[in-house]
Amino acid sequence: MNDIVNVAIIGLGQIGIYLYNEINIKKKEIENKTGKKIKIIAISAKNKNKKRKFKIDNKIFYSNPLKIFKEKNIDILFECIGLSDGISKKIVEKSLINKIHVITPNKALIAKHGDYLSKLAERNNVNLEFEASVAGGIPIIRSIKEGLATNKIYKVYGILNGTTNYILTEMEKSGESFDNVLKKAQQLGYAEPGNPKLDLNGFDAFSKVRILSALSFNNLISKNKCIMEGIENIDIKDIKIASQLNLRIKLLGISEIINGKLFETVHPCLVNKNTYIANVNGVMNAVITYGKPVGESILQGEGAGPGATSSSLLSDLLSILRGGVKKPFGLSSIKRKKVKVLNNNDYTNSLYLRFEVKDKSGVLSSITNRLAKFKISVKRIIQTPDKKNKKATIVIITHKTSEINSKKCLSVFKKNKNILKLPTLIRLYN
Amino acid sequence: MNDIVNVAIIGLGQIGIYLYNEINIKKKEIENKTGKKIKIIAISAKNKNKKRKFKIDNKIFYSNPLKIFKEKNIDILFECIGLSDGISKKIVEKSLINKIHVITPNKALIAKHGDYLSKLAERNNVNLEFEASVAGGIPIIRSIKEGLATNKIYKVYGILNGTTNYILTEMEKSGESFDNVLKKAQQLGYAEPGNPKLDLNGFDAFSKVRILSALSFNNLISKNKCIMEGIENIDIKDIKIASQLNLRIKLLGISEIINGKLFETVHPCLVNKNTYIANVNGVMNAVITYGKPVGESILQGEGAGPGATSSSLLSDLLSILRGGVKKPFGLSSIKRKKVKVLNNNDYTNSLYLRFEVKDKSGVLSSITNRLAKFKISVKRIIQTPDKKNKKATIVIITHKTSEINSKKCLSVFKKNKNILKLPTLIRLYN
Repeated sequence: MNDIVNVAIIGLGQIGIYLYNEINIKKKEIENKTGKKIKIIAISAKNKNKKRKFKIDNKIFYSNPLKIFKEKNIDILFECIGLSDGISKKIVEKSLINKIHVITPNKALIAKHGDYLSKLAERNNVNLEFEASVAGGIPIIRSIKEGLATNKIYKVYGILNGTTNYILTEMEKSGESFDNVLKKAQQLGYAEPGNPKLDLNGFDAFSKVRILSALSFNNLISKNKCIMEGIENIDIKDIKIASQLNLRIKLLGISEIINGKLFETVHPCLVNKNTYIANVNGVMNAVITYGKPVGESILQGEGAGPGATSSSLLSDLLSILRGGVKKPFGLSSIKRKKVKVLNNNDYTNSLYLRFEVKDKSGVLSSITNRLAKFKISVKRIIQTPDKKNKKATIVIITHKTSEINSKKCLSVFKKNKNILKLPTLIRLYN
Repeated sequence: MNDIVNVAIIGLGQIGIYLYNEINIKKKEIENKTGKKIKIIAISAKNKNKKRKFKIDNKIFYSNPLKIFKEKNIDILFECIGLSDGISKKIVEKSLINKIHVITPNKALIAKHGDYLSKLAERNNVNLEFEASVAGGIPIIRSIKEGLATNKIYKVYGILNGTTNYILTEMEKSGESFDNVLKKAQQLGYAEPGNPKLDLNGFDAFSKVRILSALSFNNLISKNKCIMEGIENIDIKDIKIASQLNLRIKLLGISEIINGKLFETVHPCLVNKNTYIANVNGVMNAVITYGKPVGESILQGEGAGPGATSSSLLSDLLSILRGGVKKPFGLSSIKRKKVKVLNNNDYTNSLYLRFEVKDKSGVLSSITNRLAKFKISVKRIIQTPDKKNKKATIVIITHKTSEINSKKCLSVFKKNKNILKLPTLIRLYN
């Protein structure tokens, strides 16, 4: 690489524009640390005249990012658009083929096309870096690829989405409903104003789980359909009951090797309030890895926002400027193993079940009989009558049972007219 | 570097021998990840016949490590002896001059001679890596140098010594005295059986603070005399009183920039039990950094032991094998700033003061008058009489005051015959 390095930033949303400003501010520091002079010679966005926090230099602006490849000589390109396909994929492909290093915070793209793109990067002998795609400012990808490189990691889990963690924290603190807290989160910029669905339904966290698995276990990225649940159906009632039981609800992303097979999931978990993970609150993210010989490692930090994301994007930039072409997933694509996956049905957990029932004798026993029939043993029952409305709430904490078993067992309650709605199920974290 | 890389390990204590075994086990994996074949062609230790956990190959053994430089062609050398000077320093110097990359877990050496040795490494265009010197298996050095590279870090603190953290945790749990718990720690291998002083008096943690400061603030290593206190004088009585006040004692290493000046210290701190740091227990280490724009980042993991240390040593090895010569402190020595230090007298804290007094009227007021005279205002007083022995314990929590002020204020109590011994002082963490 020359001593003057030409950079392009594609996408000038919240992240792209923050990055643009940071690079301009930190040019001197980057030169001190790497000996390279950075020059942003091309930027691109859909809408040139959108109101932005920082001024952009019109002379280097392109409406059509694909033109840049013809007209400019780029060394490193930042893809900050964020789509899993379409123009995002096209730009990254085109860059790699043109031997341009790529840096992106785009988890959807990497989770979906990471294997293909990393092969492309390797073939063209350039870097494809995506530290910012998982857990914002936390240097988790670099830690797994480099800091913990020779450990045999067998489990990685954590809080991987700041929006949902903020909402759950806020619901518990304020006692307000999901809908109200979501509105507040949107006002504060913690949830997308238009369509926050991908954060709320677990999809965003799930992309991150897939990337973490691939890095941790030296696997190709799994394409398996997994258990993925978000927090849209978390009722404030369950948060309150959980709290009385010294439990707290967290949306966890989990990936582990069970009997030699990969298991990945994202779903709300009940965790003991005394545990570390239960106390990672607000927009914070945390990733916990278990490896041999290193044991348990925890990384915690701000999981989102342009500052944290930009911190990771710049760490990728420095890594490239310091020289050396690295394999995107830590080892060459042909050496990465094919995935063997665990059947989702075999996933086992203790369960929290909440039944809303008519306050009649015999209802509780009909529930416990059904559980007994499926050999789901009960650890704890809390029955709270609502005499006035002739209703009652029954909460049952079970011992461990498999997904398939609990599904079969619970299916029948639909037809029971004493049970007023489908029971709420939340898994306890093992 | 050739595809076959020759390695030497000097020092076959607990760490060296574990590393030796790990490299042999992980040869194939290292080759997969880096394309390089590792060959250990020289090992050295004081005593060849010492009983060791793993067998060593006598054919590559040297009693005199300096001979290796003449007889073998080494690419990478691990210094695992651990002295701050003497043979450790000589070997590292000689390696760097001979253009051999050096990897070491030796915090004492780096804290004392890191500036000189990094200059030597830069001049000879080789790597000097020391990830294992701070916080064992936690990839904190790489995170600061690379993952958080362009952040403006303004504070870093944490639990940097597993031995002392184990002892404090165990004292609180068991209610036993420092001496008893120390013995237990020695039996379990958590404290050195011979001379555990460097762990207990804060010196070990202090070396790590100095290394972290230099990395975080792009300073040369400070040589300033700092406030350094260990846990040797922590009384079980204070742990119990603290617990009643919802506080816990932790030995913290702290480094921060205050008014543009560096302040480094190691001392026991009272931290609120609800905080994150209060719940890092046993042999765990944790490092917390504050930077802009990334915010707070936490890294936690096993802080000691051959497994964790070896994990970091191998991450250094992979970093070197993946190519590129990096500056040991993240930027070239001439660019690192000279240190301006804060006067220790200006350090301010709330204080926990415990007085053992005669149970006579007027004693408390003589104490509070003295505090008032020095404008140290009292937040809380807990007086516990011991009627039978005509004594009392007075615990005072003060508002913030400076070191110099508290020192002057407390000096007089030596002469007060109603105060049975010098008051115990523990600083509250800000």
